[in-house]
Amino acid sequence: MIEKESLHASLRDPLLDSMNFLNQVVLRYPDAISFAPGRPFEGFFGLEDIQDGLRAYLDHLAERGRTPEQVAAELFQYGPTAGSINDLVARHLEVEEDIHVPAEAVVITVGAQEAMLLAVRALFADPRDVLLVAAPSYVGITGAARLLDVPVHPVPWDDPNDLAAPLRAAVAEQRAAGRRVRAFYLVPDHANPTGHTLALPERHALLDAAAELDLLVIEDSPYRLFTAGRRLPTLKALDRGRRVLYVGSFAKSAFPGARLGYAVADQVVRDRAGQENLLAAELTKIKSMVTVNTPSLSQAVVGGLLLRNGFRLAEANERAIRHYAGNLERMLAALARHFPPGSRDRPGVSWNEPDGGFFLTLRVGFPVDAELLRRSAEEFEVIWTPMRSFEPGGDPCAMRLAYSYVTPDEIDEGVARLARLIASEAPEAD
Amino acid sequence: MIEKESLHASLRDPLLDSMNFLNQVVLRYPDAISFAPGRPFEGFFGLEDIQDGLRAYLDHLAERGRTPEQVAAELFQYGPTAGSINDLVARHLEVEEDIHVPAEAVVITVGAQEAMLLAVRALFADPRDVLLVAAPSYVGITGAARLLDVPVHPVPWDDPNDLAAPLRAAVAEQRAAGRRVRAFYLVPDHANPTGHTLALPERHALLDAAAELDLLVIEDSPYRLFTAGRRLPTLKALDRGRRVLYVGSFAKSAFPGARLGYAVADQVVRDRAGQENLLAAELTKIKSMVTVNTPSLSQAVVGGLLLRNGFRLAEANERAIRHYAGNLERMLAALARHFPPGSRDRPGVSWNEPDGGFFLTLRVGFPVDAELLRRSAEEFEVIWTPMRSFEPGGDPCAMRLAYSYVTPDEIDEGVARLARLIASEAPEAD
Repeated sequence: MIEKESLHASLRDPLLDSMNFLNQVVLRYPDAISFAPGRPFEGFFGLEDIQDGLRAYLDHLAERGRTPEQVAAELFQYGPTAGSINDLVARHLEVEEDIHVPAEAVVITVGAQEAMLLAVRALFADPRDVLLVAAPSYVGITGAARLLDVPVHPVPWDDPNDLAAPLRAAVAEQRAAGRRVRAFYLVPDHANPTGHTLALPERHALLDAAAELDLLVIEDSPYRLFTAGRRLPTLKALDRGRRVLYVGSFAKSAFPGARLGYAVADQVVRDRAGQENLLAAELTKIKSMVTVNTPSLSQAVVGGLLLRNGFRLAEANERAIRHYAGNLERMLAALARHFPPGSRDRPGVSWNEPDGGFFLTLRVGFPVDAELLRRSAEEFEVIWTPMRSFEPGGDPCAMRLAYSYVTPDEIDEGVARLARLIASEAPEAD
Repeated sequence: MIEKESLHASLRDPLLDSMNFLNQVVLRYPDAISFAPGRPFEGFFGLEDIQDGLRAYLDHLAERGRTPEQVAAELFQYGPTAGSINDLVARHLEVEEDIHVPAEAVVITVGAQEAMLLAVRALFADPRDVLLVAAPSYVGITGAARLLDVPVHPVPWDDPNDLAAPLRAAVAEQRAAGRRVRAFYLVPDHANPTGHTLALPERHALLDAAAELDLLVIEDSPYRLFTAGRRLPTLKALDRGRRVLYVGSFAKSAFPGARLGYAVADQVVRDRAGQENLLAAELTKIKSMVTVNTPSLSQAVVGGLLLRNGFRLAEANERAIRHYAGNLERMLAALARHFPPGSRDRPGVSWNEPDGGFFLTLRVGFPVDAELLRRSAEEFEVIWTPMRSFEPGGDPCAMRLAYSYVTPDEIDEGVARLARLIASEAPEAD
């Protein structure tokens, strides 16, 4: 018998507990329409995609002169800790994202989650070191920090185009308290959980602030491929001072089951003897103690996907991009139908209008908590996520609606159910 | 520019640095015969093994009533954090290892390395908590602990059949210093790096000691399939008090590129409210913040391998088992030839005689360090690993010889070169 109190504190963290609770609600009410999981839609995937990707990658190795035995060994054996397809990922970043980094600056990881864990582990060394996050924030970064006992402080990101100023204020506050801010994490495109996107001038302002404050920016952008119009440049593409550590994910642009992500860390690290190394090499040393190396099959299938599509994932994802854009439009239309401008103000219902991604923020005129969620699932058969699950100090009246995994018809029906829940909680005679 | 001094202490750890140094030596002298890497032999693997495994697993899902869409989704989508093939692994443990645990006690991980990281993270919560390891120890467990700032103390495992007594002494010493010993890690079969195997009576003695001292035992046994004669039962199979957390690996019994491992953690955890959970469920929560879930393709291929072989890996590995046993015999014969009993004593050369696995310990009459290794690689074209790379306080005159990845002819030639190195360092007129 082990007393839970004796286990690591992260296992008693309310944030992680609340994520477990949400998963249980989804499992317990399988017939409810769920706007909870930010999962990609799986309808465009077939087993042949795996075969095709694998074949393209193995052909590529053969074309580069590898013997059949060497090709088999690349799948069989322990691989380089930093990864095997780093050159293909660097080429993809160049061709599609205008990010120019050498393959040595790329570390292939088991999902973006491992990349975040490596970054937090490398950068945080002292009890005074703190991580700032644009809040409400993706739970994965907070979780990685909790595991490593790294303190996380929120930078409120309420107005999508006002982030540099709150960042400066948060840094000043931490420094006044004697702490060292090592890095600032954000999802600049169609953020999880809010759906916020940072406009171009604010991207420049953020990079300027990071340079002045001498901070690293951890940029995580798994949804940016799914932009209805033109994509903005990543912070990394705008980065002239190697201020940005870019976290990449193939979970949405290839498939989540591959668990393939990467870190781009082209920062120079200098030791006392004056020897220089890229930060990517330091992340690689840490990776050797987390997962040793990333599974060869996942790398091969994703490498093949890149090769088959001329390193451009937007083309490979044409149908998916249209699908998510269509779902977003459908959800915005359904919300507008149920809460027309006149009625909208009364119960205090409002929402943002992202131009892509998987999520939006819906605000209602009353607090939405775990108990209301349970009742929503049971009585109204619709599931959503309280925004406070992501940020305990956040807006108590906001919820995250994910529209990525549902069908258009489910969106219509789900929003209708949500409207009935809201009416039952905030009658018009409010 | 980042000062290396500001990064996490594990990145300046001499243990991890020395591992990097070793890897560089192997890369810098590609023509040397290398007894360094503990890699499995890759000659028995073909790409069709991946296809066959995948097909067997997909057929299994179809037989269990899944539609083609559901089968495709299992490969495509995010999967359960604890894993998808837990029932197959539990059945394998029952059929082949006489370990009887429910599938819920199994967490599928990205290699045994992730399983170790999860175990260390869950169990270590307080600065007074320490981990004991049978020393010299596998570097992966020490590395995982270093990443998490968990202190590691060695329990000298010099005589293969005397471990319970040194463990009791080490625990007494730690307790006298006000520390809490949470767990003891060992590789009981053909240990990495020594080649030691714990005999059956000493296995019982170790479990008795763990019960009396109220410790968990972390058992890691990746080489046990490769036993020349009859395998001894695992500690977990003998465990009647749920004292053993078993770390499993498919890196040698399937293939390293899959990066597939698991933890068996059937310990009961009780919280303050009296609610009970398996430790496996707590490890799963931590895993959600490390890699989210284990790649689906790796699970499918290994799941298929288990299904195709009636859950018995010994049968699937018949040729590999013979190969490693043959290499071991060849290396012992080569050592006996170059250091016959009469001459053996003079230069102080001795070695152990494991009955399986990938490694043995060679002791010489002089210290073997990094500088000698460099000279050995350059002048004698043979590479080995100083035992002190694994345990800084260990025997300065011992080296690890790995015979898993080399051919029988390379063993003969490599031992001849080693004999020339030894003769040059310790001439007979010693």
